[in-house]
Amino acid sequence: MGGEYLYQQLEGWLLQGILDQRWKLGDRLPSIRSLCSEQKLSKATVQHALQRLEAQGLIEARPKAGYFVSLQPDGVKKPVSRARIEAPRPVSVSDLLLDIMGRSAAFDLLPDLHSGDLPPAIVALNRSIGRALRRQKGEDYQYYDKPAGFVGLREQLALHHAKRGWAVSPEQLCITSGCQHALFLALMASCERGDVVAVEAPGFYGVLQLLEQLGLRVVEVPTSMDTGMDMDALEEVLERWKVRACIVSPSFATPGGALMPEAYKKRLLALAERHDLAVIEDDIYADTALGRSPDPLKALDVDDRVILCSSFSKCLSRDLRLGWISGARWHDRILHLKLVTQLASSNYLQQGVSEYMADGSFSSHLRRQRHELRTNRDKLIASLHTWPEEVRTSIPQGGLSVWVELPGHVDTLSSYMRGLENGVIITPGPLFSVSGQFANCLRISFAHPWNASRKEALGRLPGLLLNA
Amino acid sequence: MGGEYLYQQLEGWLLQGILDQRWKLGDRLPSIRSLCSEQKLSKATVQHALQRLEAQGLIEARPKAGYFVSLQPDGVKKPVSRARIEAPRPVSVSDLLLDIMGRSAAFDLLPDLHSGDLPPAIVALNRSIGRALRRQKGEDYQYYDKPAGFVGLREQLALHHAKRGWAVSPEQLCITSGCQHALFLALMASCERGDVVAVEAPGFYGVLQLLEQLGLRVVEVPTSMDTGMDMDALEEVLERWKVRACIVSPSFATPGGALMPEAYKKRLLALAERHDLAVIEDDIYADTALGRSPDPLKALDVDDRVILCSSFSKCLSRDLRLGWISGARWHDRILHLKLVTQLASSNYLQQGVSEYMADGSFSSHLRRQRHELRTNRDKLIASLHTWPEEVRTSIPQGGLSVWVELPGHVDTLSSYMRGLENGVIITPGPLFSVSGQFANCLRISFAHPWNASRKEALGRLPGLLLNA
Repeated sequence: MGGEYLYQQLEGWLLQGILDQRWKLGDRLPSIRSLCSEQKLSKATVQHALQRLEAQGLIEARPKAGYFVSLQPDGVKKPVSRARIEAPRPVSVSDLLLDIMGRSAAFDLLPDLHSGDLPPAIVALNRSIGRALRRQKGEDYQYYDKPAGFVGLREQLALHHAKRGWAVSPEQLCITSGCQHALFLALMASCERGDVVAVEAPGFYGVLQLLEQLGLRVVEVPTSMDTGMDMDALEEVLERWKVRACIVSPSFATPGGALMPEAYKKRLLALAERHDLAVIEDDIYADTALGRSPDPLKALDVDDRVILCSSFSKCLSRDLRLGWISGARWHDRILHLKLVTQLASSNYLQQGVSEYMADGSFSSHLRRQRHELRTNRDKLIASLHTWPEEVRTSIPQGGLSVWVELPGHVDTLSSYMRGLENGVIITPGPLFSVSGQFANCLRISFAHPWNASRKEALGRLPGLLLNA
Repeated sequence: MGGEYLYQQLEGWLLQGILDQRWKLGDRLPSIRSLCSEQKLSKATVQHALQRLEAQGLIEARPKAGYFVSLQPDGVKKPVSRARIEAPRPVSVSDLLLDIMGRSAAFDLLPDLHSGDLPPAIVALNRSIGRALRRQKGEDYQYYDKPAGFVGLREQLALHHAKRGWAVSPEQLCITSGCQHALFLALMASCERGDVVAVEAPGFYGVLQLLEQLGLRVVEVPTSMDTGMDMDALEEVLERWKVRACIVSPSFATPGGALMPEAYKKRLLALAERHDLAVIEDDIYADTALGRSPDPLKALDVDDRVILCSSFSKCLSRDLRLGWISGARWHDRILHLKLVTQLASSNYLQQGVSEYMADGSFSSHLRRQRHELRTNRDKLIASLHTWPEEVRTSIPQGGLSVWVELPGHVDTLSSYMRGLENGVIITPGPLFSVSGQFANCLRISFAHPWNASRKEALGRLPGLLLNA
């Protein structure tokens, strides 16, 4: 314990207590006050240790009640399927998969539903944008914004990231048209045609399509629904093939919401240094955390090789089309690529969003949304475990979806068209890999509230999927 | 004359009269009424012939006064420099040129000036966007727009193009984040790394940078300031090298505002068919026409190989970041590339702009802007011809800038830094080519009104440029 800080000692002691079941799932941990007096520690040290455990999804804070062990609800079975390691290959996406991707981008069980009232958070956001439009002066509209984007928004983003343990300066950020655009810039800047890129399997299908269009080859690394990309498997991959870049989502990887532990992150960065990789961190789900948002991998990047990509699409609005990138040693190249492929982003829009962040609206929206997402997630998981056959699900501590593993005879791809005819959109497992795996799996989103029509659609799923 | 339509006969007769100097520069043509009675033609036929001559920049309509010959103001000397034909080469853009490009994107002589009142057209545009934001409903913000973009905006754009002789359906259009983004998608879809692309010289520097970043090679085709890309030179280039695509701006090419005659367009398309080229039409300046907007090359594209790229940046607002593309035989690939590199565009923004087009605001803005641009252009040219040494200038019938050719000893590139220190931004000639040509040339914009500070900056230019 010699070299450890006090908060690390406390964190280790609490973790051991959870592993030894001194505190079981759902148990309340000792209060901050009692930990301070028993362990002879300051309040700040105790809070820091608790927040780190919370960020790892091991405990959760309940307002005015304390911290509770949240490792894994009783009786829930977790997915067991694991990707195979196969040689790098070019990506080829079929038309059927393209169709599914187009429809699933909505992250919903139902076809587009655009009725009802706008939530107050979006009304406030739109007001901020409207004010920025009205504030335009003189010949503002005649100018292109700088490629890096509006400095006011980059300052707000830097403050936002500082809360998550990453001290970034506005100069290290570049505004993009969303996270997919950021991932595109990251790959264009760090790879050349024919290079091999390591990805999570199952992982984000948008990345696979991007690799296909850029003529990059892919190698899939088995990924757990709890801890993310498997570091032993990554090490094996890196020793067997020359890999140029690795795309990971340490904070709530899609489809299952895995959260990468601190120790894995350090091992990933050590591997990246040894094999001279670009590490592209897809951080888009970080602010959907059900507890505190975890620190990004980028916060540990002393070697300037982690490119962080993110956007407002998952935590605020998909229609903003605003994201950001921090490009590490490739940042200048990324700025240039943004200039050349798009010139600029809308200045008025960035001004509106930065005001929405500066006046506290964004933070309070995230706090409210956390509670809604937790409710949605719990209802979804409870419903899945009433199905007539064995269902295994991930237990995400963030993200917007659950990964569902059904019995081996189920073929979610062939159920897709049947679902569509019945007004239900599913996201079949094979979408999340290039090798046709995960036929008996699917992703189900809890981004939307479980209103009557969604509940009804969810109720029809077992019939659609299990009785093929 | 056998196979010709009546309007074509009249057009030919009027053109011959202008060439024979029966009507000299500035002369009024016979009125529509007298042409109808003398030539025994319908009013529609006469108007059609006159509008076609106007679109070619040969005559101009003055409200309530008739049509006037506008070929070339008296006493103006036109540029004589001509690009050399050189073998295809990779593009390499220096840091100095990148710096200049970054600053010149504003199309202004002065550093950013953002004071004063917003013009009424932009106030109206911003109101439309604000209304669209307030009209958002339910979970609109939770959905990504379709890759092709909002159908209402595509319908408005189709109507707008129909006025220019191009019957396009909304399904043939895809919304982009501006024209540069459209050019990027066009090149990604139609070319592969290492391919040769023919461009105008002098031509748009943004294209050269794009070619560099996509690993394409460039061959420059000499381009006249009156009639655009030289078709003899293009033919020679196509016979000597295997060219995959050709990027042209038939309607007011930057830097000089050249307008490609109908006969050249037909020859270009015949060459494209014979050599199996993709033709990428940069149409961004079409709506800055000082007369009627000319028909696009795309209107003549029976072989489905012209990709039209455009945006609102030059004719309405640069801060909208909205453009469009019609991808001909590559359209499906382009839709997919947009999805993969950016997912979608903002729906509320597209709704706001389509309403602005639908209620007639856009058309009336264009009408007003035409008069302003004509005034700005005339003042600029008049001022240039008072300089102490010989100055040759293009006489653009559209676009936002004049190409200026100075005596051979002038080096505009070395004047750039000196200008910057003195608060004047110039756009040196070498920017518009990859081969270091046009050292004695520069582009000067007339996009902005000649207020006191701009007039003063213009007055300092001869000192900065001529006394090096």
